[in-house]
Amino acid sequence: MNACIITIGDELLQGFTRDKNSEWLSQRLIKYDVHVESKVTVPDEKSKIILILKRIISDQYDYVFITGGLGPTHDDITRISLQSYFEVSTEIIQEHHLRLIAWYQQRNINPPENLDSQSTILSGSTPIPNAVGSALGMAIKFQGVQIFILPGVPAEMTDMMENTVFPQYFQRSEIQRFITLKTMGKGESKIAEDIKDLIVQYQQDVKIAFLPHPTGVNIRLKQISNKQDLVRTVANRIVKRLNHLVYSLNDQTLEEVIGKLLRTSGLTISIAESCTGGWLAKRLTDNPGSSGYFLGSITAYHDNLKKTVLNIPENILKKYGAVSEQTARLMAESVSRLTGSSIGVSTTGISGPSGGTQIKPVGIVFIGISYNGHTSVNQFNFNMNRNLHREMTCTTALNMVRLLLLEKFSHTR
Amino acid sequence: MNACIITIGDELLQGFTRDKNSEWLSQRLIKYDVHVESKVTVPDEKSKIILILKRIISDQYDYVFITGGLGPTHDDITRISLQSYFEVSTEIIQEHHLRLIAWYQQRNINPPENLDSQSTILSGSTPIPNAVGSALGMAIKFQGVQIFILPGVPAEMTDMMENTVFPQYFQRSEIQRFITLKTMGKGESKIAEDIKDLIVQYQQDVKIAFLPHPTGVNIRLKQISNKQDLVRTVANRIVKRLNHLVYSLNDQTLEEVIGKLLRTSGLTISIAESCTGGWLAKRLTDNPGSSGYFLGSITAYHDNLKKTVLNIPENILKKYGAVSEQTARLMAESVSRLTGSSIGVSTTGISGPSGGTQIKPVGIVFIGISYNGHTSVNQFNFNMNRNLHREMTCTTALNMVRLLLLEKFSHTR
Repeated sequence: MNACIITIGDELLQGFTRDKNSEWLSQRLIKYDVHVESKVTVPDEKSKIILILKRIISDQYDYVFITGGLGPTHDDITRISLQSYFEVSTEIIQEHHLRLIAWYQQRNINPPENLDSQSTILSGSTPIPNAVGSALGMAIKFQGVQIFILPGVPAEMTDMMENTVFPQYFQRSEIQRFITLKTMGKGESKIAEDIKDLIVQYQQDVKIAFLPHPTGVNIRLKQISNKQDLVRTVANRIVKRLNHLVYSLNDQTLEEVIGKLLRTSGLTISIAESCTGGWLAKRLTDNPGSSGYFLGSITAYHDNLKKTVLNIPENILKKYGAVSEQTARLMAESVSRLTGSSIGVSTTGISGPSGGTQIKPVGIVFIGISYNGHTSVNQFNFNMNRNLHREMTCTTALNMVRLLLLEKFSHTR
Repeated sequence: MNACIITIGDELLQGFTRDKNSEWLSQRLIKYDVHVESKVTVPDEKSKIILILKRIISDQYDYVFITGGLGPTHDDITRISLQSYFEVSTEIIQEHHLRLIAWYQQRNINPPENLDSQSTILSGSTPIPNAVGSALGMAIKFQGVQIFILPGVPAEMTDMMENTVFPQYFQRSEIQRFITLKTMGKGESKIAEDIKDLIVQYQQDVKIAFLPHPTGVNIRLKQISNKQDLVRTVANRIVKRLNHLVYSLNDQTLEEVIGKLLRTSGLTISIAESCTGGWLAKRLTDNPGSSGYFLGSITAYHDNLKKTVLNIPENILKKYGAVSEQTARLMAESVSRLTGSSIGVSTTGISGPSGGTQIKPVGIVFIGISYNGHTSVNQFNFNMNRNLHREMTCTTALNMVRLLLLEKFSHTR
C-alpha cells in the first residue's frame, strides 16, 4: 500500500517551522505496511490546495493524508478548499459543538468567532474525534482514494491517528520491515567492507542502507520480500559480525543502553564536566529512572571549581593546564570519590571557537573514566564547530562507558 | 519572485531523515526576496522524478531547486532522470575530474567505480563547483524556468549556494521582509489582544502571525508591501507595547540574551540543578564566551550530593523534602557561595514519569534565584512529559534570570 502526505501552511514554506507531522506519519505508517511515496507542502491558498489535490488524486495513491489549516482563523482554509473541490455540502456535529461551548464556559473564556467551523465536517465524510484540540478531523473516500484530513498541531494529529485512524482503518503489518542498527566507532565505508558478503547475499530480500551522521553510522535494513522474520535474521548476523560496534537494534539511545547496563550491573556513575558544560549529565538524566544509577555531576567550568570542589591541586593545573590528561584523570577520580559512585567520568577540552593554542588547538579533548581503582584517559581531536565538538565529546564518553561495562560485565548484555 | 523546492530521496520519505535542506533554502531565499511556494519530496525513482518535474515546470515558478541523488551509487539517479526529461546529452568537466582523482590518490584510497558521474553535467548547463564534496551541481534554464540542481548532503548544498548560486544568480533584497519577536510569559490570545490595534493598523503592509510553542510565543512579522523599513517600525512598536515580554528581536536565543546582559553588568552566575540534570548549565554554555560569566554548576541528583557538596542540612531535606521551596532556596544560596558567583540559580522538581505523590505531583518544580543577599523562589506546575517538563523548567529559570537582570540593570538593555 502507498500513500501521499499533503501538509498545508505558509509557515512550513518559510522554513521556520519544521514539518514534524510528515516525519511522524512516515515512520508510523511503515508499521502498517503503508509506504509514503510522495510529500507535498502547499501554502494557505485555495487555488493551490485544489490544484495539488487534483494531481495527487489522479496519481491514485491508496491513502492521502492532509494536515493543517483546520483551525478557526481566516488563514485556515483547508475545509473550504476541499468542500469546493469535492463539490459537497457541510454539516455540523452538534455533540462536538456543545462540548466545545461547555469547555469555553467552564474556563470563562469567550469562544472564538468561528467556533462553528471546528465542528463542521464535509457531508459524506466520517468525523475523527479530537481529544486534544478543537477541530474535528475527517475521513472521506474520493475517486477510490481514502483521504484523511487532520489538524496541523502535532499533538492533535498524532492523538487522532493513534486513537481513531490506525485502529479503525489500518491493520498492523505482520511482517517487520525495518530495523535500524546504530553503530559508533567506524566509518561508513569500513563497515560496508566488513559486511559486504551479507549485503550481496540478502540483496533480493533486504535492502541495506548506511546513514552516516557526525557521531556514528546507522545501518538501516528494509525487508522488501515477504519472508517471515528475515530482516531480524539479517540484523542479527550483522550484529554478530560487527559485535560491540553496534550499540542499539531497538531504536534505543546510547543513554538508554547504558542505563540498562548500569541497572543490571548494580553500578552507579557520576560526572565531572568542563567543556561539555552539563550536557553529559543532561543526556544521562534524559532517561527516566536515571536516579537509580546517576548520582550527580560537577560542571567545573571555571578553574576555581576544579580546585575547590574537585580538589585538583593548583600545581597540576599550572603545570599541565586544565585541558590535559592529568587534569582529566584527577577529575574522574575526584568526582567518583566525592559522590561515592562506582564509575567517574570526566571531560575537559577546547570546544571553541576561541581559546585554542598552538599546542592545544580548538577541538582537543580529554575524556577520563575511573572505575575500581583504575583510570584511563583518552585524547581526541574533534575539529568541528562548538556544538558538534561538545556533542561528539558527550557521545564518545557515553560510548566509552558502554564499552567498559560490556568488557567488565559482558554476561549482562 | 517565487520558487519550488524538489527534494529527492527515499530516506526523506521514510521519516528517519529530516529535510534540513528545504528548511534552510526557504529561510535563506527570503533574504533575496524569493518566496518558496511549494515543496515536493519524491523517491529515488526515475519515472516519479520526471512526472513531478514536468508538473513543476508547467507551474512556471521563477526558480526550481532540486536537491539529492547526485552521488556515485546506484541509488543516485537525479542526473540520469533530468537528462532523459530535458533530452540533452552530458559532458565531463575534466578539471574537476582530475581534482577528484588526485584527492583519492593523495589519501591512498581507491576511488568509487562511478567517479566519472561526479564530474558529469548536463549539456547546456553551467557547473556549480563543490568545495565540500565530490558531485558538481548544475544551473540550467528550461522552458523559461531557472533550475538549480544540488547535492543532498546539507554541508555541500549550503556551501554551493553561499559561494556560487547566491552571489552569481541572486541579488540581496533591499527590503527586510521578516522579523521574529520571541516572547515568554503570556499566551497567544492574550498577546493578540494586547496588540490588536497594531495588527489592524498595519494589516495592508505587514502580516502578523503568532507561533505558539511549549515555552513561549513567537510573533512573526512579514512585510508584504515595499515601504522602506516598515517591518522594523512595526516590530519596535510591538516591543514597546509588550515590553519585557519580548526577549529577542534578532533571532537571539534566551541564553545569548542573558549572556549579553551578564557581560554588560559584569556579573557571574552558577547553578545548582536537580530535576534539570545539567541541562540548564548546558544551555548557558551553548553560548561561546560563556566562560566569561558562567562559573559552574552542581547537579545534585542524589540527595547525598545536596548534603555533602551543597551543604543542605539533613533536617531540611527530611522536614520539607528535596523538592521544596526551602531546599530550592538553600541550593541557590549555597552554589552562589561555593563558587563566589553574583547570581545563584537552582531547580528542584519532579519531571516524571514516576516519583510523584498526592502532595507533590509529577510536574511540580521550584526555581530559586539568589542575588545580592536576596533569594526568591517560585513554584510552578509544568504538567507535561519528562522532556518538556525539564525544558520548561530550564527556559523559565533562564527567563527569571533575564527579568532579574533587566530589573536591576535596566539601563544595560
